[in-house]
Amino acid sequence: MSDQPFSFTIPFPGFKPSRADNHIERHLSDLRGQFLDQHAYKTMLSEEDTLLYEVYEIKRPEIEGELLSGISIVHPGKVGNEFFMTKGHFHTILETAEMYYCLNGEGFMVMETPEGETFIEALSPGKVLYVPPRWAHRSVCTSRQEDLVTFFIYPGNSGHNYGTIEEKGFRKLVVENEKGIEIIDNPKFKE
Amino acid sequence: MSDQPFSFTIPFPGFKPSRADNHIERHLSDLRGQFLDQHAYKTMLSEEDTLLYEVYEIKRPEIEGELLSGISIVHPGKVGNEFFMTKGHFHTILETAEMYYCLNGEGFMVMETPEGETFIEALSPGKVLYVPPRWAHRSVCTSRQEDLVTFFIYPGNSGHNYGTIEEKGFRKLVVENEKGIEIIDNPKFKE
Repeated sequence: MSDQPFSFTIPFPGFKPSRADNHIERHLSDLRGQFLDQHAYKTMLSEEDTLLYEVYEIKRPEIEGELLSGISIVHPGKVGNEFFMTKGHFHTILETAEMYYCLNGEGFMVMETPEGETFIEALSPGKVLYVPPRWAHRSVCTSRQEDLVTFFIYPGNSGHNYGTIEEKGFRKLVVENEKGIEIIDNPKFKE
Repeated sequence: MSDQPFSFTIPFPGFKPSRADNHIERHLSDLRGQFLDQHAYKTMLSEEDTLLYEVYEIKRPEIEGELLSGISIVHPGKVGNEFFMTKGHFHTILETAEMYYCLNGEGFMVMETPEGETFIEALSPGKVLYVPPRWAHRSVCTSRQEDLVTFFIYPGNSGHNYGTIEEKGFRKLVVENEKGIEIIDNPKFKE
C-alpha cells in the first residue's frame, strides 16, 4: 500500500494553511543573543516574551525523495531598530536546496554561505526564491502591520543546523534608521 | 564560489512566470493514442495540431539535493468528451515526491501507482497537492475558458518516465457527459 496523496489550501493571499501537522511558535526568548541591540532586547523581554514568528509544518518522512513543506509567518515589529526575523539555519546536509513562495507582506531573505558569500533578496507577494544548496537563510519581516507569509519546500533529508548561526550570527542585518530600511554588516559576527 | 540564489515572480493569479529557462509546448500530436475517442482525435488533428499545454521550466542541476520547478499551463478544451490533459508520467526514480500549488483554473490531478491504486484530486486556486513517491500524475483542465495553472516542485534527481503511461495509459479518465464531469475507468487501459 502506497502513501495516499493529500492536499490542502493556502487561501490567497495566504495565511494559515487548512492543514498543519505541527505548529511551531518562536518567541523573543528563543532568539537570545541574535539581535544587535541587547539592551532593547532585554527591556522588551522583561515586559513580554513576544511572539516573533510561527511555522505550520506538513510532516513527511525525513528521507531522500520526500519533500518537506510548510508556511512561515513572521510578524511585524522591531527589537531596537532591527526587524523581527527567524532564527535562520543551514541544512545539516549542506548540499540541499530550498524554495520559497511569498504569499503576503514585505521583507527580505538574508542568505550566506560557509565561505562568507552573502545575498539579500527582497520578498513580496508572488515572488519565488530559489535558495541553492549551501546557503543559510533567514526571513525578515519589514512590513509595518502585515505578516510576512511564505510557503517553503525542501528535500526530506535536508535537516536543520541552527547551531552555527546561533553561535556566529549572520554577516548581514536588516535595520531601520533615519534613511529607511538598510542592510548593514553585523558588528557582532564571529568569523 | 557557490551558485547564487535567484528569484522570480508568479503574479496572482499566476500565469507565465517572470523567469523561464525552458518553454515546452505539447500539441495534440504529442499525445497520440492517449485520448479515448480516437475518431475525434484524428478529426481534430486533421484540422489543426492544437496546443494542449505548456510548461515553463526553471533549470537546475538534475542531481539529489537540488529542486526542479516550473509552471504548467493546461489549456481548456476537449477531444471528444475527454478534457485536455498532460501526458503524465512516473518519476524515473520512483521513490521521489512532487508538490503542486494551483494558481488558476479548475481541474484534476489523476494519479496511480504501479500496483494499481488510483487517486483523483480536484484542483482549484490556493490548493496544494502532495504527490507522494511512487505515484504517476497527470493534470486535466476542466475549466470552460480558463487555463489550469500549477506551480510544481520536485527533487532534482527524479527524472521522467513517460514510456509506461504512453504504453499502458492511466486507469482513470476525466470526461464530460450528460451528467456533467465524470471520472470513468479507462476501457483501453493495458494491465
